[in-house]
Amino acid sequence: MSVYLHDIPLDQAQERFFQALVSAGMGGVLGSEEIPLNEFALGRVLAEPVWARLSSPHYHASAMDGFAMRAAVTEGASPSTPITLACSAPDPQTTYVDTGDPMPAWADCVIPIENTEPLDVEGSPAADPRRPYALRLRTAVTPWSHVRPLGEDIVATQLVLPAGQTLRPVDLGAIAACGHDRVRVSRRPRVAILPTGSELAPIGKPVQAGEIIEYNSLVLAAQVNSWGGGATRFPITPDILSAIQKQVQEAALVHDLILLNAGSSAGAEDFSAQVVESLGELLVHGVAVRPGHPVILGMINSGEERKIPIIGVPGYPVSAALTAEIFVEPLLARWIGHRPNQPVSLQTTLTRKLNSPAGDDDFVRVAVGRVGQNFLAAPLTRGAGVITSLVRADGLALLPRGVQGLPAGAPINVRLYRSVADIERTIFSIGSHDITLDLIAQYLSQRGAWLTSSNVGSLGGLVALRRGEAHLAGSHLMDPQTGEYNLTYIREYLPGIPVRVVALVGRSQGLMVPRGNPLRIVGLEDLPRAEVRFVNRQRGAGTRVLLDYHLERLGIAPEAIYGYNQEEYTHLAVAASIASGRSDCGLGIAAAAQALDLDFVPLFSERYDLVIPIEYAESPLLAPLFEVLSDPNFQSAVAKLPGYDVEPMGTLIAEVG
Amino acid sequence: MSVYLHDIPLDQAQERFFQALVSAGMGGVLGSEEIPLNEFALGRVLAEPVWARLSSPHYHASAMDGFAMRAAVTEGASPSTPITLACSAPDPQTTYVDTGDPMPAWADCVIPIENTEPLDVEGSPAADPRRPYALRLRTAVTPWSHVRPLGEDIVATQLVLPAGQTLRPVDLGAIAACGHDRVRVSRRPRVAILPTGSELAPIGKPVQAGEIIEYNSLVLAAQVNSWGGGATRFPITPDILSAIQKQVQEAALVHDLILLNAGSSAGAEDFSAQVVESLGELLVHGVAVRPGHPVILGMINSGEERKIPIIGVPGYPVSAALTAEIFVEPLLARWIGHRPNQPVSLQTTLTRKLNSPAGDDDFVRVAVGRVGQNFLAAPLTRGAGVITSLVRADGLALLPRGVQGLPAGAPINVRLYRSVADIERTIFSIGSHDITLDLIAQYLSQRGAWLTSSNVGSLGGLVALRRGEAHLAGSHLMDPQTGEYNLTYIREYLPGIPVRVVALVGRSQGLMVPRGNPLRIVGLEDLPRAEVRFVNRQRGAGTRVLLDYHLERLGIAPEAIYGYNQEEYTHLAVAASIASGRSDCGLGIAAAAQALDLDFVPLFSERYDLVIPIEYAESPLLAPLFEVLSDPNFQSAVAKLPGYDVEPMGTLIAEVG
Repeated sequence: MSVYLHDIPLDQAQERFFQALVSAGMGGVLGSEEIPLNEFALGRVLAEPVWARLSSPHYHASAMDGFAMRAAVTEGASPSTPITLACSAPDPQTTYVDTGDPMPAWADCVIPIENTEPLDVEGSPAADPRRPYALRLRTAVTPWSHVRPLGEDIVATQLVLPAGQTLRPVDLGAIAACGHDRVRVSRRPRVAILPTGSELAPIGKPVQAGEIIEYNSLVLAAQVNSWGGGATRFPITPDILSAIQKQVQEAALVHDLILLNAGSSAGAEDFSAQVVESLGELLVHGVAVRPGHPVILGMINSGEERKIPIIGVPGYPVSAALTAEIFVEPLLARWIGHRPNQPVSLQTTLTRKLNSPAGDDDFVRVAVGRVGQNFLAAPLTRGAGVITSLVRADGLALLPRGVQGLPAGAPINVRLYRSVADIERTIFSIGSHDITLDLIAQYLSQRGAWLTSSNVGSLGGLVALRRGEAHLAGSHLMDPQTGEYNLTYIREYLPGIPVRVVALVGRSQGLMVPRGNPLRIVGLEDLPRAEVRFVNRQRGAGTRVLLDYHLERLGIAPEAIYGYNQEEYTHLAVAASIASGRSDCGLGIAAAAQALDLDFVPLFSERYDLVIPIEYAESPLLAPLFEVLSDPNFQSAVAKLPGYDVEPMGTLIAEVG
Repeated sequence: MSVYLHDIPLDQAQERFFQALVSAGMGGVLGSEEIPLNEFALGRVLAEPVWARLSSPHYHASAMDGFAMRAAVTEGASPSTPITLACSAPDPQTTYVDTGDPMPAWADCVIPIENTEPLDVEGSPAADPRRPYALRLRTAVTPWSHVRPLGEDIVATQLVLPAGQTLRPVDLGAIAACGHDRVRVSRRPRVAILPTGSELAPIGKPVQAGEIIEYNSLVLAAQVNSWGGGATRFPITPDILSAIQKQVQEAALVHDLILLNAGSSAGAEDFSAQVVESLGELLVHGVAVRPGHPVILGMINSGEERKIPIIGVPGYPVSAALTAEIFVEPLLARWIGHRPNQPVSLQTTLTRKLNSPAGDDDFVRVAVGRVGQNFLAAPLTRGAGVITSLVRADGLALLPRGVQGLPAGAPINVRLYRSVADIERTIFSIGSHDITLDLIAQYLSQRGAWLTSSNVGSLGGLVALRRGEAHLAGSHLMDPQTGEYNLTYIREYLPGIPVRVVALVGRSQGLMVPRGNPLRIVGLEDLPRAEVRFVNRQRGAGTRVLLDYHLERLGIAPEAIYGYNQEEYTHLAVAASIASGRSDCGLGIAAAAQALDLDFVPLFSERYDLVIPIEYAESPLLAPLFEVLSDPNFQSAVAKLPGYDVEPMGTLIAEVG
């Protein structure tokens, strides 16, 4: 096998795959089955049109509780000239009918009971108004009033539902109404999902370094099931060529599609391409799509002259999920016979520059929010290993082949994962990260609102506010001249934009160190020591400003600190760097240290504010946020975090501008 | 019981119901359960937030297949000044790693294998590039290049998903990635669905006049399941008070909600209110909402001090389905703890006048299409018994209490059942009805397009085209002066609108009569006979023009024909009138007669055209329609219909204007 992949363009790969499917007789609906018409038919797809067997109603039916009669007998009735009809057998002029009762053969209309005067034999109101002796009327009616004629809803033989319809609750009702008790639907495609890899550990097994929790098969199975297929998850097969071959052959006997995950790249243990070649035909190895390029497409023999498709799905979780969206979803739609998903798309404005390899179709996960009149798309991390980027994504933007990148502010179309209505209820927050924001998101979600936060540091947040790219920014920027928080920077960076500054929390900043503080670090004075590997926050972060302020006060040169240029973007990332042994200490907040079981040397106390343009501060969108800030449950949840002081929470610090 | 209902406004009814639920401790999430984390957790709703137990990755991992090393050793490497690193034990400077392998403790970066020169002991390219003797490099790298640091995706203790999240495939992956193998979700509310009524017949049983196929329980069960509940369908209970009481009591023991259908009105056999009063408290009887006003809301005792809600659901299928949307869906959302569905809504223009009772919240089913720049909402039939109106509806418009109606052209907001993308692929057709249009819809759906047709007669269709309310109109209007079809009328009704006229079919028009033609009707001359009850088409219909033309030629006065003023809007409705014995004959097409097993007396041959404004005729939207017209499968399906001639199909008759 080659060490390198030769990627081909996505559309070519799809075309080559589709042609092979057509040749194997698998280009369309796989087959159908007749199932009982019950609630479990929901979501199945009609394999053939439904034609009405029966009309509905299948007889002329009264549409009201009232009296049936011939319209002709009411002629001339008016408030001042009532007429009276006989109700008694053997030859009544009118008779009571319930809604849904068949019309008597001699009657052609119904008058609702509340528009009649049922009388007893003496001419008084009848004791039982539904069985009167006579009926007095003060209004004339036209034939067929309050009658549901035969076929009002459905006429026998008419087309009720087309083939390809995905059955909704009301569709089931219409099929029953027109006389069917069974329904022919396309059969569910059977999809085998084969996780392979000696490094994989099943969910629930404690893992060691080098072991990876195998959850791609879980995501793929849930995707397949949600697209109308039936997934079978196989146990993990180790990286042994013969074992994988055997498992694939076995799966091929009873499935329509095999997803082989992973081993689709060109590494030492990547056997997927070999497996496909040994059992059938390798059509494509490598597709120019990101994330996900080491995709394999092939057809393998499954016994009895039958060939079935196999897809080598890349191992990174984001690549795996997107590969399924790109190749498996349209295939299942074709096999099931319904229209492929037509995702809702939205024209948005890109918040920051995107680079993209010109040769690839590049799918970028984005957060989407409406700020003022604009829908904004903020690109999330591009890492193919970051499953949370898909969890957080509001949509997917495609930078097509030939496009080398886009500048900030460029228009970009986003295929949405969430409804526009939900996106319009999303608070777009940017700036410094604080764990409290995660808790706010949790409490907002109980109120039907959403919070999306991007971490670009305090200064980055103010700059984004100036560009109209967020509803609020979290900031803890101390002015080294005055010791005051945020206001100086707001005046400098947000001229002419009136904002409200609301305190979120007070919090301790200090040095995070490994449990037991092995290097006995007690203050910033220890940072220049030769054995101390520091990890810093990025420029513009409030914590970085704080550090630089105190370093200058102490007369410590940044160059004297090993790791000063090693930047991380969140408190937790700094903590993770220390927990993993990559660094020995970093400045940050106590909660991050506790989260990763580190020790914490408290040094300073600081205030973390929310900076909110007045225009948004007074909008209904942000009302739930202010509710959360004054919710005692939320306050006590924050107070439980180490190093947090909720006393200032919600205080109006200033209005600026 | 009273004969009349006293409807209360919808918001009051909802509030009264909600207060009773809160008092009974059923105002929020009902309870939770821990389930295994597998693909069957899809769609369940988190009962509590998911916090990360493990970081992901939980160790520093190579992000590429390549060579691990310390970045410092690459310093100074360039294309012209390569450096060479030792690969051999015991103290290698670099070592090969696969993607996902843990980083050796001494290494801090990875260089992808394709950017290296693996060498053998002689300095030639290594036979096994992954196990070289030495490695030559021509580029320097920075620390942590191509390494996925611990916690890149998820840091232990962070919030991964908030409570209330409906689990998607990627969410399941993220939960597994952060170290969980079980997940706590809200339990499914248990909903009992009790169909009652002596007139009801189960699906599949042959029905007599007066018997109604019981499919409301099917629709309600499918709705409940699709909203995350678990439905139990009970067998039909006849209209016997004690039997219904017993069934309700039994269901109450093991369910959280009872839907009692129907008997919620005030008819002779309507026991629902009595049942609720006898077993608990009747909160509301009658809600000012259309369709669906005879709704009952109550709380009943279910043993052991527990009270559960009961809803008396009206019997008409549209009322039943909408009552569930209005009362059951939000209740289940509350009990499951997810956000209530936020339907997509769209601003549209009403195509025709709507009347509405001022006291009611009036829900109107509409077809929605985009014609030119406007989204149009065409009201569908208002009949609560017409389930196909829900099947065909693209959305629901609300005329709120206090609004007595809206004129044609008024703006109206529509809650969509289909995506805007699908609506934008919908061909909006109006005019004369022909069965071929049903077949076109079927063939279009195979091409991913939709057809919505409104039947307003040929002339109504041309008027609608003039108002910009459709993409095309079906027309078969003969000019009595010339015998020519459509062109005269197009010139008169569509001045200044360039249209293309394309033939759809030729078809026979004649008299539909009952099987055996008992009145021996052979031509229009028979219509004035005293015993003949005629049924007519509405004014503007092409068939009506044809009739009037021939009546005048024959010197027959309309007043001489019994039933001349009895109008129906489609061929099939005319046929149904005859099939049901309401009339003895009507003018129409052979296919409609065959559909309802009538005899047919052919009289004339006529052409049915599609009139298409050039602007749409040349748009991509209509391309699939022209494909269908030239599809041999479609042509042969039409040719099989009695009285149809496909020879002219697709012929360009004229361009006018």
